[in-house]
Amino acid sequence: MTRSRTQADGSRAPTSADVARLADVSQTTVSQVLNGKAGITRISAETREKVIAAAARLGYTPNHAARSLRQRRTKLIALVLPTLDNPYFSDVVNAAQEAARERGYAVTVMPIREGDGFRASSLLQGAACDGIIVAGHENCASPELRLLQARGLAVAVLQEQSPDPAISSISVDLEAGGHLATRHLVALGHRRIGHVTERLRPAANGMSRIDGYRRALAEAGLAFDPALVVVTENSMAGGATGAERLLATEGEPATAAFVYNDQLAVGALARLRERGLLVPRDFAVVGFDGLAVGGFTAPPLTSVDSPRGTLGRLAAEVLIRAIEAGSPMAETHRLPVRLLVRGSCGGQEPGDPPP
Amino acid sequence: MTRSRTQADGSRAPTSADVARLADVSQTTVSQVLNGKAGITRISAETREKVIAAAARLGYTPNHAARSLRQRRTKLIALVLPTLDNPYFSDVVNAAQEAARERGYAVTVMPIREGDGFRASSLLQGAACDGIIVAGHENCASPELRLLQARGLAVAVLQEQSPDPAISSISVDLEAGGHLATRHLVALGHRRIGHVTERLRPAANGMSRIDGYRRALAEAGLAFDPALVVVTENSMAGGATGAERLLATEGEPATAAFVYNDQLAVGALARLRERGLLVPRDFAVVGFDGLAVGGFTAPPLTSVDSPRGTLGRLAAEVLIRAIEAGSPMAETHRLPVRLLVRGSCGGQEPGDPPP
Repeated sequence: MTRSRTQADGSRAPTSADVARLADVSQTTVSQVLNGKAGITRISAETREKVIAAAARLGYTPNHAARSLRQRRTKLIALVLPTLDNPYFSDVVNAAQEAARERGYAVTVMPIREGDGFRASSLLQGAACDGIIVAGHENCASPELRLLQARGLAVAVLQEQSPDPAISSISVDLEAGGHLATRHLVALGHRRIGHVTERLRPAANGMSRIDGYRRALAEAGLAFDPALVVVTENSMAGGATGAERLLATEGEPATAAFVYNDQLAVGALARLRERGLLVPRDFAVVGFDGLAVGGFTAPPLTSVDSPRGTLGRLAAEVLIRAIEAGSPMAETHRLPVRLLVRGSCGGQEPGDPPP
Repeated sequence: MTRSRTQADGSRAPTSADVARLADVSQTTVSQVLNGKAGITRISAETREKVIAAAARLGYTPNHAARSLRQRRTKLIALVLPTLDNPYFSDVVNAAQEAARERGYAVTVMPIREGDGFRASSLLQGAACDGIIVAGHENCASPELRLLQARGLAVAVLQEQSPDPAISSISVDLEAGGHLATRHLVALGHRRIGHVTERLRPAANGMSRIDGYRRALAEAGLAFDPALVVVTENSMAGGATGAERLLATEGEPATAAFVYNDQLAVGALARLRERGLLVPRDFAVVGFDGLAVGGFTAPPLTSVDSPRGTLGRLAAEVLIRAIEAGSPMAETHRLPVRLLVRGSCGGQEPGDPPP
């Protein structure tokens, strides 16, 4: 084991001593964290984070671990998902699994809740997979992803920008979806259009649903009114609460809502019904995802159809290509969406194909 | 390595040669299959099945593999589920994960479709977990479970009878649920009560939903009419088709249905609405599971509340107890259910607490 390596540009490669110095911990701690040998509870989360951040910042690769990970081919890929509560993810998993199976790989799913802290090294050390597909804003932002990638795992993120040039990103065009949904409501004559959404992310990069919502409003010459944006919990119950609060907004009332996803929209439809509003006559609703359940609501839900099957399949294909190339081959894909017109808005937009 | 071992009762323990002879394959093949070293595609599924069946029949344990599995503590447990499409399973996973985390374990989910063949050895070799919780009728019937158990993995089955004295079983009382649901409809005055169900299992053991349905009919002096039992696909679309077919049944029409699960019931409610029937005035529906979505249907769905959280939590606890005991400690648990009265049957049963 050499304690000093030379990089392609002639500079000295970082060592574990450099990482220890930057993180202000011992080399033993660095080794325990980076080689995944420490028990989950033995080293504090704070120390782990410091070591990983330092290693990522210096571009340090623990070579032994990398070699051992690379040599161990398990033919298993892991999907790290923030929740299994939304059927959106089961559609993605089903498609990823089918694509993986065609190539001789199996799929395992690791539910890691946003905010629980992504303890990927420990988890994935146990699972011993060849690559991971990660969803969830905080999971994708974890510095551990770069570390796992550096240690020989193929990594792809879903619905997020790639955190590293060597990490692939596969997403659907959320901005275009928000635009399509809102433009549909505008075309049907609505002028006070609300947006019921889960909490907005601090790092708005012009690529999310609400950006498309704002663009469609602006194109129609409608002012963006923050009072019509209702933030709620990401669940059916949250959708019900969100609809309730949108109805209670002061000023000229909303006559329609673009709702963050179909789960929320199912709750919103129920609450509107309870409040005596007839959808679509009294209020129009557009969801997002195009889930099966939207075909069975009262009325059936118009939604932005997100290509969940293509998303899952492509993510598995991209990941397996990287695994089999044996080196980072990052790809970036953004998939188009379409509007799925059912009954909850009350009309075809001029020029739309029949449903 | 001894080629002949003596068992507690003095008889000779089976060897890999015995397995090879019974399965009519070479000892190399036996070793490749049982030690999980063969690539998934290298040995035919048929041969694998023969070897596993022979090993299970003889009670053969490949000691080396067992020792290596037992020594490798991963603090990871795997849930093998037939589908992620039903939120029932995400509720079970969430609870299992919470219980596991409290004990320092992580959870991974392996979706293995019924009928795809349970390739547990290969999969679980890759995942390197300490124990597995298995759901799905065919998955639980796989001979590989006994083999995995013999090799040192803790094994528990969900919603099925234990296939082996060393394998734990955790289930909810489906028969009692079918009885509660049907008795509720009887108490509300219904005499022609249909049952919309996914395909019935050949091995009826008096413990499934339909047995409770029949018991409640018999108790009310109502004849069981096979024409009122409609078998359909396990999905929302299947529920819609099932309701359609129940309405089309010849003879005196059904006025109510006990539906297999809430997913099916969501589809059934939508189809009844499309056909112009007002629920509960014209037709009553009881689902099974008590899923969140039933609170948002039109009308809200009366259902048998299955204790999904307790099921998942208990399964994880039982499994981890067995892992930490280091030896098989089979437990059998059957959890009670209760009726969750909402709006789809149109009334409280006399003596029911208010909803």
